[in-house]
Order: sequence, then structure tokens, then C-alpha cells
Amino acid sequence: MQKDGYVVCRDGISEGIYERLPDRYKDCPVRDTKGALILPGLVDLHIHAPQYTFRGLGMDLELLEWLNEHTFPEEAKYADIEYAKEAYGRFVEKLKYSATTRACIFGTIHVPATEYLMDLLEQSGLCTMVGKVNMDRNAPDPLTEQSADKSAYDTVEWVKDCLKRYRKTKPILTPRFIPTCTDALMENLKKIQMRYGLPVQSHLSENVSEVGWVQELCPGSEFYGDAYDRFGLFGADTRTVMAHCVYSGVQERRRMKENGVFAAHCPESNMNLSSGIAPVRAFLDEGIPTGLGSDVAGGSTEDLFAAMAHAIQASKLRWRLVDDTLKPLTAAESFYLATKGGGEFFGRVGSLEEGYEFDAVVIDDSAVSDREKAEISERLERLIYLSSESKITGKFAAGEEIFWR
Amino acid sequence: MQKDGYVVCRDGISEGIYERLPDRYKDCPVRDTKGALILPGLVDLHIHAPQYTFRGLGMDLELLEWLNEHTFPEEAKYADIEYAKEAYGRFVEKLKYSATTRACIFGTIHVPATEYLMDLLEQSGLCTMVGKVNMDRNAPDPLTEQSADKSAYDTVEWVKDCLKRYRKTKPILTPRFIPTCTDALMENLKKIQMRYGLPVQSHLSENVSEVGWVQELCPGSEFYGDAYDRFGLFGADTRTVMAHCVYSGVQERRRMKENGVFAAHCPESNMNLSSGIAPVRAFLDEGIPTGLGSDVAGGSTEDLFAAMAHAIQASKLRWRLVDDTLKPLTAAESFYLATKGGGEFFGRVGSLEEGYEFDAVVIDDSAVSDREKAEISERLERLIYLSSESKITGKFAAGEEIFWR
Repeated sequence: MQKDGYVVCRDGISEGIYERLPDRYKDCPVRDTKGALILPGLVDLHIHAPQYTFRGLGMDLELLEWLNEHTFPEEAKYADIEYAKEAYGRFVEKLKYSATTRACIFGTIHVPATEYLMDLLEQSGLCTMVGKVNMDRNAPDPLTEQSADKSAYDTVEWVKDCLKRYRKTKPILTPRFIPTCTDALMENLKKIQMRYGLPVQSHLSENVSEVGWVQELCPGSEFYGDAYDRFGLFGADTRTVMAHCVYSGVQERRRMKENGVFAAHCPESNMNLSSGIAPVRAFLDEGIPTGLGSDVAGGSTEDLFAAMAHAIQASKLRWRLVDDTLKPLTAAESFYLATKGGGEFFGRVGSLEEGYEFDAVVIDDSAVSDREKAEISERLERLIYLSSESKITGKFAAGEEIFWR
Repeated sequence: MQKDGYVVCRDGISEGIYERLPDRYKDCPVRDTKGALILPGLVDLHIHAPQYTFRGLGMDLELLEWLNEHTFPEEAKYADIEYAKEAYGRFVEKLKYSATTRACIFGTIHVPATEYLMDLLEQSGLCTMVGKVNMDRNAPDPLTEQSADKSAYDTVEWVKDCLKRYRKTKPILTPRFIPTCTDALMENLKKIQMRYGLPVQSHLSENVSEVGWVQELCPGSEFYGDAYDRFGLFGADTRTVMAHCVYSGVQERRRMKENGVFAAHCPESNMNLSSGIAPVRAFLDEGIPTGLGSDVAGGSTEDLFAAMAHAIQASKLRWRLVDDTLKPLTAAESFYLATKGGGEFFGRVGSLEEGYEFDAVVIDDSAVSDREKAEISERLERLIYLSSESKITGKFAAGEEIFWR
């Protein structure tokens, strides 16, 4: 943390933080943030774009009921490209002006809508991984793909399109979760994964009933994550991020560690859907790569400062109510999760240190903290709890300006 | 819930809600809220005015350490009236433009600062109960009153002043909590309570270490609440509100019910200070009068919509992790707590129904909900989670306009 210093960006990469601007940069253009905080851009490892329309609604249900009553009917609407255009327009506009620079995003099963979403994201300047969702069982008809082969065919066409069209918007394979994907589909997805070297995102061990259901569906698997791993869709040679991991036990965590599977911790969603609290301290102690997810619309907001606050609060309750050997998260640790922790999924991302891709967010926190008197660490802690009272005045991703005002 | 209707106020009292304006009111002035929501003003049963300066700071500590490291040093500053003027100025300004119309507020031990706070609150139009805090042991010197008698003397002078000066701003006796109040002080306070018929506010069963400490300090008391009750400062003929009640067991809850002691549930604070989760469902089932408290600065915000969201979230985690016989709170129940539940402490308050004092808040939620399509219950649920994206455009307390814009 440097007070009143300079952070230097060249060719999209940070060249470090300086108290005074070194002579060698004297001809570079300089932007004055006028006392605002300059932070690394925040990384959202798990968010559902089509669910943005119903944030904060229907929260009195648990996961599986909530999927059937709210999520699936809403996602079915994205077969209509006109509906998708309006809804995704609003989503990308909000994400653009948030503190997030990187995100792993779920779309729906629909290729045209997902590509429209990706068009908008590409124009926004954000660096994202976006998934056309795969699901060929256990969902309402309009959201169930016709067959594993058709789902795979659509996925390949979509991936080929993406690789041609986008620079900052990457395709990521997205089997929704084990209950909605047949073995045949998983086998197909692994082939596609290998052919294009794609990363993978999905859900893992979120909710008690869901975990039980997966056990029924895959009696041969040792644990939930093993049901992905049997198909080669759980880390190792496949960059993988799994959302939630609330009920990831010792065995599953060991496999995550061995395979380098990222955990996307989504604390607000885990509260709202009565799922529970993930053992994030164990993830950190055991060396499982971990970041934060807003999980809109299980979570109500894309604001990752709120996710940091929820992560701290949830960890304190877990410590008090469940297991006092796992110490609560500190403010600094939750900030780490939302930056470097999740950033690693994107490469050298999530820090302003030399050599990292230059993702930065400029935040005017003058309504929250007295800049003259407060330490930077104090300003950061207050921002975590009071982000809605601050103003984001600029943002860069991979060195490119997203906005400045 | 009435869509596009009228709520009528005469002489500070609601005369009910109507789909069409009855003829008998045809000469009354009408305000058009232009599609905005009109809700009962929210009731904050527990907030510390002098702690507003350090919201969102020092949250990595538990209660007793947090009091010593952050709270007590800050509260000591209110001996300086100039400091108090600036800090309370900001606090009252924020409270005035929040959705809160009623609040039970802690000041500090300092009479001049507390009266200055009350002057500002009176001017604001809010209806509040404010306490000069009493504490004569177990605190740092500058916050320990010289003796029980001096504390009582100051309290009487302050009460006499208040009764002369204020119309909407009432004094409430405020022994901080058992650990900081000697028996002699408690006896004095009971006498003052009886002489002036004052209500009482304090803290109860918040944190494991605190509960243990009270047991040590009062070996003769049956439970924490009994330590207040022995002095007649726990309901019955004395209107009493107790903050937290996280560890209120069966016995304590029975006494609260018998004595009509109000519980001020402060879920965010209970998360931030690692206290735990109060059994609110048990309070409701057992008929203990219950409302919500923001508990700034254990809580980070005065926004009671956030408190509603935290109450729901905490109740879900408690159901999942601690006791699945106590069902989680619904959105409607948390709204009840923040309105009628806490409002009862002030009389007929917390509803727009006929006969209630007219406390109303007007909220433009157009950035959150589509007013044409959404049900009012849906708009309310979204407001709970997304209040920071809405705008409060008007407020009335006891029939008087606080602001309109």
C-alpha cells in the first residue's frame, strides 16, 4: 500500500508502484486520481448473466426449489433474442461500471443469446470467460437440450465462433451441474475441452439436498467432485473453477488441491439459499486456489465489496457456530480473495505489482473516509462495508481504459 | 398492500388506506408520489450515535476487545463539545435522510454532547428516544463516571432538561450494560425511572465472553436478564428494550415474555463481532415483542433494509447450522420486525393502518423494479436486498414532514 504514489502501466502490464515517478517514465502521460483509491480490479469467479433480471427476488426458497420456480423459467426466456438483448444490455452496463474487471460468467443454453452477451462484454472492455450452458436432463423442456450430441454440436459451433470473434471474451465450458448433465454429454464435453484447450466452470457441493441427489445419480463416484473428475472435467490438465464448495469434505478438498481446482466462494448466495457456509479458511490453509463469486442471482448484487463483507461475516459465524478451529477471515484476506485469489484463474491478474496485467479501479471514497486522517488499510476496510456510499470513477482492464469520469 | 391508492393522515394519525379517495377527504391537500412506494417509516430499536464516525472499521475483533480498542476511545472524545457537534451533525443528517423515522439511540456519558445530539434530532423531525449513557466501572477513566451518585445526579439534571426542551425527543435511561454499572448505580437509576416514568434501554446476552463475565459479576442472578430485573430495570412496569439477546435461553426468554421486554435484534452487528445469531423465530413464537436494530457501529449502516436482509440471512444460517426446528424468517417477517414489531415500543407506530401515528417513507424504486410489471410484494423484497440502488424521496414522522424532494 502506497500513499500518494504512482502505478505505471506499459503495454497492458504493470511496471510497479512508486513513491515518486522514476525518471525513465518522465515522458509518459499521467492521470491524477485526486486522492481516490487505486485498487486492483476485482475478480468475480461466478456470476449468472441471465439471472440479473431477478436479483433480490424469491429468496425464501432453497436451491432446488428456487431453480425450478425462478431460475429455469427465467432462463428459458433467453430463447427469445429480443428479450436477451434488453436483459443482457442492462447486465453488461451494470458490470461495466462496477469494480469488477474480470468475471467467469454463466449464460444460458442458447447460443445466439450467449453470443450477444459476449458481443456486449467485448465492447465493454471487460476481460471475461463466458459459458454457453450445457444441460440435457432434469430441467424443464425448454431448457433441456435435445440430446447430448446436439448440445455438443452447438457447443463446438459456439466455440469456433468465439475464437474468431473475441479478443477479451473467452469461451469456458459450462456443464450446469451434475444433475442436469448425462454421462454422454460429459464425455462429449471432455472431447471438446481437449480439442480447444478450454477451461471449465460448474457448481460443486452447494446444498445438502443437491449433494444427496448427486450421490444418487452417480453411485460410483467417491464424492461430488469425483463425478466431474471421472470425465476429466475437474482440474489437472483442465483449468477449472467450481462454485460454492460448501460441503466439500476432506477427500474432495484433497482432490481439488491435487488437481488445482479453483473454489469460487459465494457467501451471500450461500446465505440467501440457506445452503450453509463454505470452509474458506480450510481452502486457504490447504492451498486450494480460491476467489470470490457474487453468484447473482443467488447473491443479490454484483458488488464484490459486498461479497467481501459477506465472506468475513459468514466466516465469523462459521467459527462461532460450527468449527472454532477455522479462524474467521480478516478484511485483508477477503480483499485478497477478490483480487489475487480469483485473479490467478486468469493468469497474472489481481494485483498492481510489477508483471501483473494492469487491471485497476479508481474509487472516490471521500464520502466514506477522511483521506487526510485515515490509513489506507482503514479506507479499504470501510470500503468493504460501505461501498455503496463511494463512487467508482475509473477502470482499466488489461491496460485498456473501460471508463474515466 | 394497495396499488395506486391513497393513505390519509389527519392530526398526525393515519385514517387508513383507500383505493379511491373517499368524498369526505375531497378538500384535503393531496401529494402524488408518482408511482413510488409508500411504506411505514422504519424503526431502529438500537443505534449508537457516537459510533457513527467509525462504521466499518475494526471489525476483526470480538465485542470486549472492540469496545476497548475502538469504542471507548472514540466515545471519550465526546467530552469535547466541538468534536460532538461535528460528529453528531453528520450522524443526524444521515439518519434524517434514511428510511428511519423512529429510533432508540445511545449517546455517551456526557450531558452537553447528548443534549446537543437531542437538539439536532428535535430539529430533524424524527421521533426518537435518546440515552445519556451511565457507566461507573470497568471502563477507561475518561468514560467512568466519578461515582454512582454523580452519575445519578447528572442523569436527573439531564432528564429535567429534556422534559422541558423537547417534544419529539424523549429521554430513555441507558445503563450501558451490567459490566459497567455498579449495584449502587442501578439502584439510583431505578429511583429515577420511577420518579419520571422513563423507559429503559440496554444490552443483553450479546457475546459468549460477556455473558460469562456477567455471571462472574452477579453470581446471585439466575441469568443475565435477571441481573437487570433485580433492580426493576427489565420490563414489567418499566418499558424496556434490550439489544441482541443472542444467548437468551429459555428462562431469560420466559422472563422477557412475562415482563414484556422488547428484543432489538441486530443481525449485522452479531455477525461483525462474531457474536452469533439470535433465535428470532423463538422470540416471535413465544410472543416476545421484537424489532430490528442497526447497532451502528457494530453494524456498518443505519440502513434498516440492510438489517432486514441480514436478519433473513442470519436466520437461514441458524436454521441450517444450529437448529432446524426454528424456521428462517421470510421477507415479510423481516419487514414486520422493522416496522410494526419495533414500532410497538413507541406506541401505535409502524403501520399505515387506521389509528397508527402517521410515519411514512416514500421510496423511488424505479432503478430496482419495473413498477408496471412487478407486484408490490416483489418490489418490497427487492428493496430489502437492493435498497442502496433506490432513492428515498420523502418522509413523515407523526404526521410532520421531515423532507420531500
